[in-house]
Order: sequence, then C-alpha cells, then structure tokens
Amino acid sequence: MSAPRNSPSSSRSPYKNAPTRSVSVDGADFVYRELGPEEGVPLILLIHLAENLDNWDPRVVDGLAARRRVITFDNRGVGRSDGTTPDTIEATAHDAVRFIRALGCHRVDLLGLSMGGFIAQVVAAEEPRLVRKVILAGTGPAGGHGIDRVPALTVRATVKGTLTRKDPKLSLFFTETAGGRPAGRAFLRRLKERTDHRDKDISLPSFRAQLKAINGWGRQASSNLSGIRQPVLAANGESDRMVPSQNTLDLAARLPQSELVPLYPDAGHGGILQYHDGFVTTALEFLES
Amino acid sequence: MSAPRNSPSSSRSPYKNAPTRSVSVDGADFVYRELGPEEGVPLILLIHLAENLDNWDPRVVDGLAARRRVITFDNRGVGRSDGTTPDTIEATAHDAVRFIRALGCHRVDLLGLSMGGFIAQVVAAEEPRLVRKVILAGTGPAGGHGIDRVPALTVRATVKGTLTRKDPKLSLFFTETAGGRPAGRAFLRRLKERTDHRDKDISLPSFRAQLKAINGWGRQASSNLSGIRQPVLAANGESDRMVPSQNTLDLAARLPQSELVPLYPDAGHGGILQYHDGFVTTALEFLES
Repeated sequence: MSAPRNSPSSSRSPYKNAPTRSVSVDGADFVYRELGPEEGVPLILLIHLAENLDNWDPRVVDGLAARRRVITFDNRGVGRSDGTTPDTIEATAHDAVRFIRALGCHRVDLLGLSMGGFIAQVVAAEEPRLVRKVILAGTGPAGGHGIDRVPALTVRATVKGTLTRKDPKLSLFFTETAGGRPAGRAFLRRLKERTDHRDKDISLPSFRAQLKAINGWGRQASSNLSGIRQPVLAANGESDRMVPSQNTLDLAARLPQSELVPLYPDAGHGGILQYHDGFVTTALEFLES
Repeated sequence: MSAPRNSPSSSRSPYKNAPTRSVSVDGADFVYRELGPEEGVPLILLIHLAENLDNWDPRVVDGLAARRRVITFDNRGVGRSDGTTPDTIEATAHDAVRFIRALGCHRVDLLGLSMGGFIAQVVAAEEPRLVRKVILAGTGPAGGHGIDRVPALTVRATVKGTLTRKDPKLSLFFTETAGGRPAGRAFLRRLKERTDHRDKDISLPSFRAQLKAINGWGRQASSNLSGIRQPVLAANGESDRMVPSQNTLDLAARLPQSELVPLYPDAGHGGILQYHDGFVTTALEFLES
C-alpha cells in the first residue's frame, strides 16, 4: 500500500468544503474526504447503495467531526474511485480494509449505513485488531429478513421517482407521514449544500454490481454474529421499509457487545438522518465511553 | 459552434480501433468516432438507451463504413460526453443537431436504433434541410403502442440480468429461441472486440433521465408523421418485445416516403444486429439509391 498522496492532516472546514483527496490502493486511486481533529481513533464512514461522498448528511459528518477524526470515501469503482465495483459484500469489505491500511490507519471505528453496515460487519469480524468500535445504522445481518428484496424495492422506487421527478430517497429513507416528508426534503436540501468539487455519480454497471452484492448478502445463510466482538451501537427508524427495522433489533439481540438506540419514532431507513442531532450525541457518547 | 478539435478526416481502421475524438458543442465536449470514406453525405448513428460508443455492433458500423462516412457519438452527459443528460427526446434531438453542426456537417443521413430512432424522427421533422435520408430500426412513433412500458421492462430485465449474471441485452434484444440465443451471444462477443480506449459507462442519473425521456415519448399523443418528408427505411425483428414490432409497421404505413424491410424472422429488438450482413446490404442500397 502506498501512502496518501496528499497531506494526511484533517480539515477544520465543514464537510461541504472538505477537500477531496486520493490514495493509491494497490494501484487504484480511491477518493476520500477527511475532517475533524487529527488525534484519536478515526471514524470511517461506509455509505449505502448507489451513493458517493456527496451523499453523507453534512449535519451527521460535521456533528461527529466536532470531536472525532472522520473519513468518508468512495469504494472501488464508485464516484471518482478507480476500478471495477465488486459484486459481493465480502470483496467490498476487503477493499475497505485495503483503503484503511493505505491511509496508514492501524485502528479505526466504523459507521455503516444500510449496505455500509453490511460491509462494516464483515470488516469488524475479519479484522478484530483493526476495528475498535462499530456503529450500524439502518442495516441488518447476512440473511436478514427482507434484505434480498432491497434491489427490487430500490429499482422500483428509482423508476417511480424518475417518472415523477421525485428523488427515490424520499420514499426509501423517510416515512410518508407529516413528520417524515419534511424531514426527507430537509435532508435532500442539506445534500446540496456542497456546491463545488462535487463527486461523480455512480455508473450503471457499478450500481448493478452493488445490487447483486446486496441480494447476495440477503440470500446468505443467517450469519453467526458472535465473531463480532467489538462494542456495537445499533440505530434505525421504527418503520424501515428498505432493511426492515426488525433486523436492527435482531443485530442488537445477537451481537455479543451491543447497545440499541431506541428505534426513532415516525422514521424509516434514514432515521439517523431525520434525528441527526440526537444520533450524533448518542454516537459520540458511544465512541467516547 | 466551434470546429472539431481533432482532424476531421475519417479513419480507414475498423471500428474497434477507431480513435475517439471530441468536439465542443456550445462549450460541452461531445465525443465521437468517425470512419469510412471522407467523401459523401455522412451517416450519423444514434444509439439506444443506456449505451455508449462501444455498444455499436462493429459488423454494422464497419459494413456501412465500407462505403459511407459513418459517425457515432455520445449525446450530452452520456459516456465521455460532458453535461447533464436531458430527460426529453426533443431536447436530446436538439443536442444531436448541435453536435452535427459542430462537426461542420450541413447534410447528413441518420440511423437511429430504438431510442435513437425516436431522436432521429424529431431531427428529421425539425431539420428538413439538414437530414437527407433516415433509417429507423427497432423503434416507433411518439405515443406508439407499448413504448411507455420500455422503462419498466428495461429495469426489470436489468435487475434480473444483474442477479443472474446475464447481460440484459440478451433478453431485451434477442428472442429466447434456438436462433436468437446464439445470435445474442455472438453480438455480445463482438462488442468486446474493442479492447483499448473504451468508452465510459453511463451514470445512473443519465440512465434515469433517458428512462424518463422514453416514457414521455411513449405517453405523448400519437404523432403526425407527415412532417417527416425524407425517405425513410424501417427495419426490425418480427418479435420485438421492447418496442413492439407493430410500431415498425405503423411507421412504414404512416410515413410519407417509407420503405419497409420485411421483418426479420425469429428476431427481436436487435433484428438488425442478428441479421447484420443483410441489413448492411439493404441500408447501403437505400442510402445510395
């Protein structure tokens, strides 16, 4: 692994202005952004299906970066990261580990949202010395209830959203309620706060590879979570229609060292985005306890 | 419009080795490839949904380029062409006209496949002096039967193909018959003949914009084809499940100056790809008559 091409120092500017850096991972350039204090165990953020650096909620990233070194990145073949996107969660997790090591990190915390949470579970289980603590949001275990249906659900919402000019994230991440609808619109507005040096959209083949990876994760035999020995914080909305909320309860029940955030009321897959202030407080307490 | 940045001379090398050039269209770089003789009315190829320069069948391009100057290009926001992909056929057609004029062409022939055929119809109707002759393959008129269902059909096949590791073009462009299946596999092999300097895959947002454009074309009021006064050659397989074959018959019946290639037997949306030798002969005769 080569060292980062740019200075490894973190940025004090908000996420919307954080520079995009790149690091060579076995010859492929992976892009990332880094902010927060330079000291302490870095928190690596693992993004969900179809999205890139620009899709992290700036309130969540900035809130966490007020006290932690936070690193977002595009995995192989996504956004401005080179290469061919793998079509299994396991291969994606191995790429995440290579990226973390390429940055020169020897101990990290992980925050995985949805598909990012699948990846975080594999990294945590396979790399017990690399990973200190894990936050899992809107996600579930391998073979978890309804996860193999995520690709079909996503694609239906994508087509419907396309034809109705509505971002599919509104219906996939937020409840269709008086509370959920404005929260979804506010989230989409926040994603537009960054105006310069935005990331590149995912390609159709990379999106397809991720759909296949998620479907494979959902169709695996139910995983034995006892291999994840790190402390884990599990959070979600109470009405997640993407990765049904019972998967979050299942994770919390079966992980050896888990802490469950009471499911956010009137919220779905994007519960941590809708309740970003409360989530940031809870997450920081968990990481610093 | 600015002049092409590269030499406008055509290439004698086969399509798999044709250099990718670019031309500035109102400040946005559009990429294209050009081959065949330098003389004569150029034939502009308009590609279908989701695809780029690399998706033209080399047998069709090389066959046509044996006697005609042939130009393929990526429309706005697709592959390596700059900009945001429009979500209407009309806007896409206007971009095609700007591209043609940016190349310095004042008179062209058009070959449109599927969505490319929708675009060709708009260009031909709006630019009677620019367009000399038109070839429409696997396509239909605005408001044509079943065209509004193309996005849902494509997306279902894309998801299914993703999960089964089969290229969705196999089921969308070829019949599931003893004749169609090997023809589809042979077509996919031909698309891989180009190994260097391949184009970039379409982004998910550009794919979504095209789905919206196709849906809009399918939902328009039935178009009055009498505005297309140029000679038109219409071709398709007899069993097109994407843009049902009756649309080809409808085009041939309603266009003022049309010629119908008898529908290719045991063939679907990709009939001209399955019968590439016969199609090239027929197309050249039409263009040179």
